[in-house]
Amino acid sequence: MRRSIQLSSIGEAIYQFCIELYPICRSITGKGLRDTLGMIKEHLPGVKIVEVPTGTKAFDWVVPKEWNITDAYIIGPDGEKVVDFKETNLHVVGYSIPVNKTVSLDELQQHLYSLPEQPEAIPYVTSYYEERWGFCLTDNCRKKLKPGQYHVFIDSSLTDGSLTYGELILPGNTKKEIFFSTYICHPSLANNELSGPAVLTFLAKWLTSLENRRYTYRIIFIPETIGSIVYLSKNLQAMKENVVAGFNVTCVGDNRAYSYLPSRRGNTLADRVTLHVLKNLHPDFVQYSYLDRGSDERQYCSPGVDLPVVSVMRTKYGCYPEYHTSLDNLDLISPEGLSGGYSVLKKCIECLERNEKLAVTVLCEPQLGKRGLYPNLGTKKIEK
Amino acid sequence: MRRSIQLSSIGEAIYQFCIELYPICRSITGKGLRDTLGMIKEHLPGVKIVEVPTGTKAFDWVVPKEWNITDAYIIGPDGEKVVDFKETNLHVVGYSIPVNKTVSLDELQQHLYSLPEQPEAIPYVTSYYEERWGFCLTDNCRKKLKPGQYHVFIDSSLTDGSLTYGELILPGNTKKEIFFSTYICHPSLANNELSGPAVLTFLAKWLTSLENRRYTYRIIFIPETIGSIVYLSKNLQAMKENVVAGFNVTCVGDNRAYSYLPSRRGNTLADRVTLHVLKNLHPDFVQYSYLDRGSDERQYCSPGVDLPVVSVMRTKYGCYPEYHTSLDNLDLISPEGLSGGYSVLKKCIECLERNEKLAVTVLCEPQLGKRGLYPNLGTKKIEK
Amino acid sequence: MRRSIQLSSIGEAIYQFCIELYPICRSITGKGLRDTLGMIKEHLPGVKIVEVPTGTKAFDWVVPKEWNITDAYIIGPDGEKVVDFKETNLHVVGYSIPVNKTVSLDELQQHLYSLPEQPEAIPYVTSYYEERWGFCLTDNCRKKLKPGQYHVFIDSSLTDGSLTYGELILPGNTKKEIFFSTYICHPSLANNELSGPAVLTFLAKWLTSLENRRYTYRIIFIPETIGSIVYLSKNLQAMKENVVAGFNVTCVGDNRAYSYLPSRRGNTLADRVTLHVLKNLHPDFVQYSYLDRGSDERQYCSPGVDLPVVSVMRTKYGCYPEYHTSLDNLDLISPEGLSGGYSVLKKCIECLERNEKLAVTVLCEPQLGKRGLYPNLGTKKIEK
Repeated sequence: MRRSIQLSSIGEAIYQFCIELYPICRSITGKGLRDTLGMIKEHLPGVKIVEVPTGTKAFDWVVPKEWNITDAYIIGPDGEKVVDFKETNLHVVGYSIPVNKTVSLDELQQHLYSLPEQPEAIPYVTSYYEERWGFCLTDNCRKKLKPGQYHVFIDSSLTDGSLTYGELILPGNTKKEIFFSTYICHPSLANNELSGPAVLTFLAKWLTSLENRRYTYRIIFIPETIGSIVYLSKNLQAMKENVVAGFNVTCVGDNRAYSYLPSRRGNTLADRVTLHVLKNLHPDFVQYSYLDRGSDERQYCSPGVDLPVVSVMRTKYGCYPEYHTSLDNLDLISPEGLSGGYSVLKKCIECLERNEKLAVTVLCEPQLGKRGLYPNLGTKKIEK
Repeated sequence: MRRSIQLSSIGEAIYQFCIELYPICRSITGKGLRDTLGMIKEHLPGVKIVEVPTGTKAFDWVVPKEWNITDAYIIGPDGEKVVDFKETNLHVVGYSIPVNKTVSLDELQQHLYSLPEQPEAIPYVTSYYEERWGFCLTDNCRKKLKPGQYHVFIDSSLTDGSLTYGELILPGNTKKEIFFSTYICHPSLANNELSGPAVLTFLAKWLTSLENRRYTYRIIFIPETIGSIVYLSKNLQAMKENVVAGFNVTCVGDNRAYSYLPSRRGNTLADRVTLHVLKNLHPDFVQYSYLDRGSDERQYCSPGVDLPVVSVMRTKYGCYPEYHTSLDNLDLISPEGLSGGYSVLKKCIECLERNEKLAVTVLCEPQLGKRGLYPNLGTKKIEK
Repeated sequence: MRRSIQLSSIGEAIYQFCIELYPICRSITGKGLRDTLGMIKEHLPGVKIVEVPTGTKAFDWVVPKEWNITDAYIIGPDGEKVVDFKETNLHVVGYSIPVNKTVSLDELQQHLYSLPEQPEAIPYVTSYYEERWGFCLTDNCRKKLKPGQYHVFIDSSLTDGSLTYGELILPGNTKKEIFFSTYICHPSLANNELSGPAVLTFLAKWLTSLENRRYTYRIIFIPETIGSIVYLSKNLQAMKENVVAGFNVTCVGDNRAYSYLPSRRGNTLADRVTLHVLKNLHPDFVQYSYLDRGSDERQYCSPGVDLPVVSVMRTKYGCYPEYHTSLDNLDLISPEGLSGGYSVLKKCIECLERNEKLAVTVLCEPQLGKRGLYPNLGTKKIEK
């Protein structure tokens, strides 16, 4: 799986963490979330794991039932498993209700999802807020299904439980905060989205190791959309008071591009530092508009919330062909790709930590001469 | 006189009103003003008619004596009337003092006004603030005058009286006001200026009929310049407090163009709504500069007054060859032209009535799904 | 020495004053400064002469010891004076410590300064803050020195004394001030810098003669750098409260160019009036950047001081070949050149004195007619 022995060790380490997290079946609630947070906590013992009960209101939203799944398959007319959740958790529509019955091929087709234009890819499909069951498979596989009776089985549960997220607060010399957010609700998908949690885990490790931090750091690992909304509903006041710059960490694992999606206001400290870093390190970066938004900046920058949050990415979600399919796998990301995403964000932090508005400490010119900084002989060539 | 049976009824109605008003000999004071206001009041019973006595001070100005006229003519050497006020009131210089004597052709020439470059047009000439008498006629007619004695007769009077104007206040849900002003001091001239009073009368009728008005409407029919100055001297404080947008209604009767003359500040609500309407409905409209001003916006936008008043016009005063001559007659305007002026102003009002600054009612994104506004199945094509 | 009998008398007078001041050996302290101020005071009896003791702190600086010199020379191996301070005071390095000994040519060379690229020019060299002795001479003269023993003699003194400056306050109708500064620390150098003190003396004479001054004038004659810093340290608060425009007067004596160096902020009243005058009178003037600064605007415009001070010059210091050499002598400047510098500054003062923000005194349009400013006959051609 490792491609090159010349890779930087940080990229290797992040990539290794992606490999470990990859098989887990994550969703916006459930055991997959908890397992993922547990593995992050091994790197970051300070992470606090928070459970928010089903039914909790969060602005216009409500925390849904908790979804868990242990197994799922389809057995064909000739007794063979034609689809098996154990091969890849993408085979089941996220939040599928349990089912265990025999159906005709015609009825089965109503519950299948494939991509005719990408016949070898399994699509990633979810149904969080409408109860249904379904399977995802390659279009090539789907075309081979013969008429007959199929046994469909999904051993899942939808119960009153909770939504789980992780939060790490690293105190600094001031209460002013730098905010980082990433999401951990995607199952076996690599660039979008294991790259974000893996890179942010290692960024937080580095931040933890610093002897002296000017800013306080607020770092969260949440399910997308409902997770950021829940988190904001509990922390908005403190964040509005303290956050001076924020970053949504997503799609930071491939090798193809560097991308920047501005905050809604566009000129916040987060925007300025990101532009400064990308213009200097990767001047060919892709600049999106806030109108291209699609991740949690939709919540962080919404009117009335108005946090200074940007997205720094490699290739942006929705802008690469493997997006939201089984092709967004561990071959798509790389140690180099992850290392690049990590480095840009680290450089943004370094710039923020060192950024200062300087004020003069002496009126008129300082006397350079007495500090050995000025020639003590005034002549034509050197004076004025 | 009616040209087409497909005309919109509102254009026909306004045009018919112009026909009725056309023969009246209006000036900045006098019976013609009162007769005109009386006919407007037939359509708008709420109009209050205000008399401001001769000698009243208004900022740098004083209300002049009231001028009235019943007859005027010139009888030539052979006993025939060569000029007759009864044919068109344009034949007499506005505010002419009375005269009744016999003069030579040479002396008569000192009191005649014609346009050599438009030999078939009678010019419109006034002398409000210098006592004189005079006749206007076509240059062709003037050239035919033979040497000899002429009897000149003007039966006019200049007396202590008053300046008359009409005011209509239509209350709305707020004290904030939309202001409309037009002028009724021109004798038999059509585009400039019967179109303004006629269109504004019908706009006010429509406003009166509305069940619910967000804004209060202040609508005035005044003589130009001295009338707007007198009106401001009596109402400036209230207008500065309440007027959010104002329109000077003039030259809204012909078919050739749509024109916009901005307020002095250029970016008021009145400017923005006018530009919005014209850019959408008549994108080929002519945009003038405030430096091209020439009507009552000179008073409404003057420094210290600073009301947000624009002019919305068809072809602008001074910018068409018939301007201020007998050629600016009922053939120059049309039901279509008047209907177009009416429609643009009505659309401006509708935009203002509906214009609102919206504020979010929920923090973060609203949950579109529970309102049936979002697909409940998340897949590659439709999600993000 | 006078070139032309057609010269303006003011240019002649200023040039004559330069001739009188030229021989004096000025430095940043000492008798030369006092003699110069005494001669200025003959023209401007109101000038107050201020002594600031050695050791006085001024922001980051300290007033140095006072330097005086009476004689200096080098006697060569054959007994002849090869360098004589009495010929030109440029021959001695400014602030040279006393010396009286015999040295070899090799040792002497360590104390000689010349300009190989301008072999006929004596350079102007100073050593205010490092104790050393030295002589300046033409490179041609230096090359002729033969091996042997040389007697070097400098009869100078460095003692606790004071720094001297002159200040003239001319009261006006308001406490608001126009500020002028020039420097009087250069020995026998003409454009940089006798032109500034001479022109400013005559500007101040003219200002003194005015019957009525709108502004108060603060005019100072100081040694460069340490003088402006000392002056600011004593007067900053009053200057920050009152100075509305300031001018550093330097290099205003030659004929080649007009130059403008803006204040740090670039848009102060001083900048605006200077640009107005130069654009109109001398549109081919050279515009420098604040980054090209090199004179006392370095202090007046420094952060925290922030006075609105510009430099108006003929050919700028450092930008002409004779700069800081014996070639910057009375042949380089001229009555015409000085008169030009004087005239531009005088015009700036006249503009400032007359500059007013006008406010309307009447609401609506003034009635032009009653003032004879408007035709009293309204016709097509002249009315609107």
